[in-house]
Amino acid sequence: MHAYRSHTCADLTKSNVGDTVRLSGWVHRIRDHGGVLFIDLRDTYGMTQVLCDPDSPVFAEVEGVRSEWCIRIDGEVKARDESLVNPKIPTGEIEVFIRDMEVLGSSEELPLIVFGDQEYPEETRLKYRYLDLRREVMQNNMALRSDVVASMRRRMWDKGFREYQTPIITASSPEGARDFLVPSRLHPGKFYALPQAPQLFKQLIMVSGFDKYFQIAPCFRDEDPRADRSPTDFYQLDMEMSFVEQQDVFDTISPVIAGVFEEFGGGRKVDAPQDWPQIPYKEAALKYGTDKPDLRNPIEMQDVSEHFRGSGFAIFAKLLEQDGTEIRAIPAPTGGSRKFCDRMNKFAQQDGLPGMGYIFWREGENGTEAAGPLAKNIGPERTEAIRQQLGLDKGDAAFFLGGKPSAFERVAGKARDVIGEELSLTDTDRFAFAWIVDFPIFEKDDETGEIDFEHNPFSMPQGGMEALESDPLSVKGFQYDLACNGYELVSGAIRNHKPDMMLKAFEIAGYGEDEVKNRFGALFQAFHYGAPPHGGCAAGIDRIVMLLADEQNIREVIMFPMNQRAEDLMMNAPSDPTSDQLMELGLRVIPQDD
Amino acid sequence: MHAYRSHTCADLTKSNVGDTVRLSGWVHRIRDHGGVLFIDLRDTYGMTQVLCDPDSPVFAEVEGVRSEWCIRIDGEVKARDESLVNPKIPTGEIEVFIRDMEVLGSSEELPLIVFGDQEYPEETRLKYRYLDLRREVMQNNMALRSDVVASMRRRMWDKGFREYQTPIITASSPEGARDFLVPSRLHPGKFYALPQAPQLFKQLIMVSGFDKYFQIAPCFRDEDPRADRSPTDFYQLDMEMSFVEQQDVFDTISPVIAGVFEEFGGGRKVDAPQDWPQIPYKEAALKYGTDKPDLRNPIEMQDVSEHFRGSGFAIFAKLLEQDGTEIRAIPAPTGGSRKFCDRMNKFAQQDGLPGMGYIFWREGENGTEAAGPLAKNIGPERTEAIRQQLGLDKGDAAFFLGGKPSAFERVAGKARDVIGEELSLTDTDRFAFAWIVDFPIFEKDDETGEIDFEHNPFSMPQGGMEALESDPLSVKGFQYDLACNGYELVSGAIRNHKPDMMLKAFEIAGYGEDEVKNRFGALFQAFHYGAPPHGGCAAGIDRIVMLLADEQNIREVIMFPMNQRAEDLMMNAPSDPTSDQLMELGLRVIPQDD
Repeated sequence: MHAYRSHTCADLTKSNVGDTVRLSGWVHRIRDHGGVLFIDLRDTYGMTQVLCDPDSPVFAEVEGVRSEWCIRIDGEVKARDESLVNPKIPTGEIEVFIRDMEVLGSSEELPLIVFGDQEYPEETRLKYRYLDLRREVMQNNMALRSDVVASMRRRMWDKGFREYQTPIITASSPEGARDFLVPSRLHPGKFYALPQAPQLFKQLIMVSGFDKYFQIAPCFRDEDPRADRSPTDFYQLDMEMSFVEQQDVFDTISPVIAGVFEEFGGGRKVDAPQDWPQIPYKEAALKYGTDKPDLRNPIEMQDVSEHFRGSGFAIFAKLLEQDGTEIRAIPAPTGGSRKFCDRMNKFAQQDGLPGMGYIFWREGENGTEAAGPLAKNIGPERTEAIRQQLGLDKGDAAFFLGGKPSAFERVAGKARDVIGEELSLTDTDRFAFAWIVDFPIFEKDDETGEIDFEHNPFSMPQGGMEALESDPLSVKGFQYDLACNGYELVSGAIRNHKPDMMLKAFEIAGYGEDEVKNRFGALFQAFHYGAPPHGGCAAGIDRIVMLLADEQNIREVIMFPMNQRAEDLMMNAPSDPTSDQLMELGLRVIPQDD
Repeated sequence: MHAYRSHTCADLTKSNVGDTVRLSGWVHRIRDHGGVLFIDLRDTYGMTQVLCDPDSPVFAEVEGVRSEWCIRIDGEVKARDESLVNPKIPTGEIEVFIRDMEVLGSSEELPLIVFGDQEYPEETRLKYRYLDLRREVMQNNMALRSDVVASMRRRMWDKGFREYQTPIITASSPEGARDFLVPSRLHPGKFYALPQAPQLFKQLIMVSGFDKYFQIAPCFRDEDPRADRSPTDFYQLDMEMSFVEQQDVFDTISPVIAGVFEEFGGGRKVDAPQDWPQIPYKEAALKYGTDKPDLRNPIEMQDVSEHFRGSGFAIFAKLLEQDGTEIRAIPAPTGGSRKFCDRMNKFAQQDGLPGMGYIFWREGENGTEAAGPLAKNIGPERTEAIRQQLGLDKGDAAFFLGGKPSAFERVAGKARDVIGEELSLTDTDRFAFAWIVDFPIFEKDDETGEIDFEHNPFSMPQGGMEALESDPLSVKGFQYDLACNGYELVSGAIRNHKPDMMLKAFEIAGYGEDEVKNRFGALFQAFHYGAPPHGGCAAGIDRIVMLLADEQNIREVIMFPMNQRAEDLMMNAPSDPTSDQLMELGLRVIPQDD
């Protein structure tokens, strides 16, 4: 017999009754029922009930084991009494009578109990991560992550992509975030950087002629702490293709993403890729108040400015006299009660707006009747026109926000989310996707008036050189995001592979040729030697796994995460270097006064 | 039609004759044959001959293109004249008449020619890696590497392993090599380290209850320059299992390795895993002079001390009077000529030995006759006994080395290699594997007489605590390597998961409990909470790909390698940090005086 097990803890069924078996695993719980010891023996596959009565030659030894001891037992499989069958687990029909036992690893008193749902402070969980990971939910999350990544790989291979590893110790990359630096010992005083993304490398791979690249790529950013991201690194499904247009990238990656959500979504509805809308950036801002809309929520905002221009609602009427202002409505089907409307109004106020005007429609003496202060101010004709534009009816409501869209769009988007949830309009059992397209290439800083790249400088401008020579702020890029349930899952672009157009774009953003060469010299140089048109995208793996696992915290889907202060409490990182190490690197630590 | 291509450059065959097609790719070569322009158009899939005669509406434009321009052409597929068919390429039966052309990316004068076999200095190749990678051999090497890694993953999944990613930004690891450090911005003066291997993490994963782990893992070591390794990082197929013994690890990984060699070995013979010998470390040293023997070479060395003890060959006879000395023979079948023997003797002298004595057997007047000075000194009886022990005959030779094995073993091993190659005994068309087992846990420093770990402190001693309490130098570990064709491909061990045994082992090596906690505190702590028996191994991916690709230099199988001075000439790394970066990290660079 094998030294440690003839079966896993999930294997044994009624068909094994009478067999002598060997199991290894952890003592999940141990109970004493009238002198008989019952142990739930657990491994990563499942649980088996093993028991020991005083007849067993190892009864005394078994009496000594405690939770989380790792043991090996030999025993005989017996059928459980009909009344004791546990139909919830595969091994629920049997139990194993212990005849021999070996303690493989005993345990000291536990800082964290593995069975049950007791909550522990994150500090405890991260310090004793190896115990935390024994818990069922963590075992499942880690298996899920592994399976999701494996599925992505299979799907990319099936599409003819090869995975190529790009350097981790490299030069500073121009993604705009902060680099992690790595001091060089052979070149004291000089530093490498960890890549913020394989962006430059994947584009260089395209210039090298490989025309389908992907990588499950670690990306390193020295970020300030935030609850929903790792302070050090994250993983992307990164891909790039040559000789493609935007739609080709969509056609390639959409089935991969959809397939993963179908495979691991636990039965939740997944919109089919051919039904994923392509929403221009501007339209997304208007309808959803965000470039990562949650389309499980059917509410679409509308521009209702015309109904308020010169109306009796002076605040909006005056607002509209200023350039660049609009009034937008958030329709709220079934939200037609003063109580609900007041609550939503308060929500807006908490979020920094003066409030949202509203109208709601109720059963009145002469049929449907509009209520709310706003309705009175603008009169029945305009109110009715609004109702008709929004397609609302008795029992519904609408909220109104006015001003420069940039000032209220974000809150409007959040209000839309809250309204959808509160009215149960949002289908929580669904993954709803949309491509957001036509991002602007440039943006103007409101304060300085300066023009800079809206996202990154890699995207091909729609309309090419000609467009760049017109009004820069009107230039859209072949640049896109995939939104799912209110999150940005994928981001990408068709790249600008023309050196002259690249120089022009940088010039518009106020940078000279030096900056181009400084920020991505190798790529700019490479584009002078026969560069193919190319584009791609990157999908955030941590976030995809979070969505699938229904977790809110990224640390629940990472095996050994940093805490929010970028510390590894288990491994004790970061830590003090030795003076020899500093010497070799030619560095001195500046004493901090704090 | 698609914007860039209806087919790849490897697609078109006779069945497409008459079709109008669109191709994109690079101008591999362009030739002018009597006013007709012939272009070999290349993409990553293959090559298609396209041509342009003066009738084409774009003749003038096509005249302007040069090698490595990236172009898109439209044209008509025509069958080649029977006499012009090229059977060597899939598209050799057709050619495409260009009707339209678009320059997608033009090229400046090339620093490196893509077609042909011209050699370039490594500096040029690395600086313009994106051009170097367009060469056929590099395209093939990169595809091979990608396919090997994919195959490894598939094989591990099929065996029920999941891939778990372990941290890249972490704490110093106790592998014994030099760490790359990463300064922390949030904790100025403190440093993270890049992992030398995921050793601690994979063992912690076992303690977490996951019982089958693997990872294609980047490993980072700040190594001094050496031709056959990367100065910064390398990749391993890293795996670990719980509830296993040594043979279980062999049974798991052997078919994975063998499968990869069969799949990508290009028809070279691959020894079947069930035939891989398990050779104890000591036996390998005796027979092959190394712990990574090349078993394609049938030569096995033997201890022939007895034949020289008290013999007329005074040098050896005297040597044998000292403790710990031996005389070993390298049999050399078919090596029986003075010329060959003298040449091998010279080889040993070049390698720092006084030389190798030899005997060779030839046709003499009375049948087989032993020749060489050594034979004369020890006389015919002893000579004959040696011949019989070594199983040699007329036309064969044997070489002899004497002294303390540690002083000559390495050279003996090299001589065995050279003799095998020179005599064509080594089957170069084969991958020959052997597990080397029973490595000693401890070794004694010849100079200081101090005992230290021979390899790493993670291995389980054979015989457990009892063995540790006997003579430390005789303790073998459950520690093993897989050798293939003279390279170490895999290394691993069953781990010591018992805290008390770990302390004992460290004590023998002269370290206290502090050192255990300092070098792997998390793991030592984790072993106090129910640790399972576990073991595993890691396979060197770069080396496996090198063997399969038949390359001698690791940089031929890495997409964007560092040069030997750990510089990335393309990306310009390492480079000077900005003073802002140093300030944020709380570091100052010490001026170097050189």
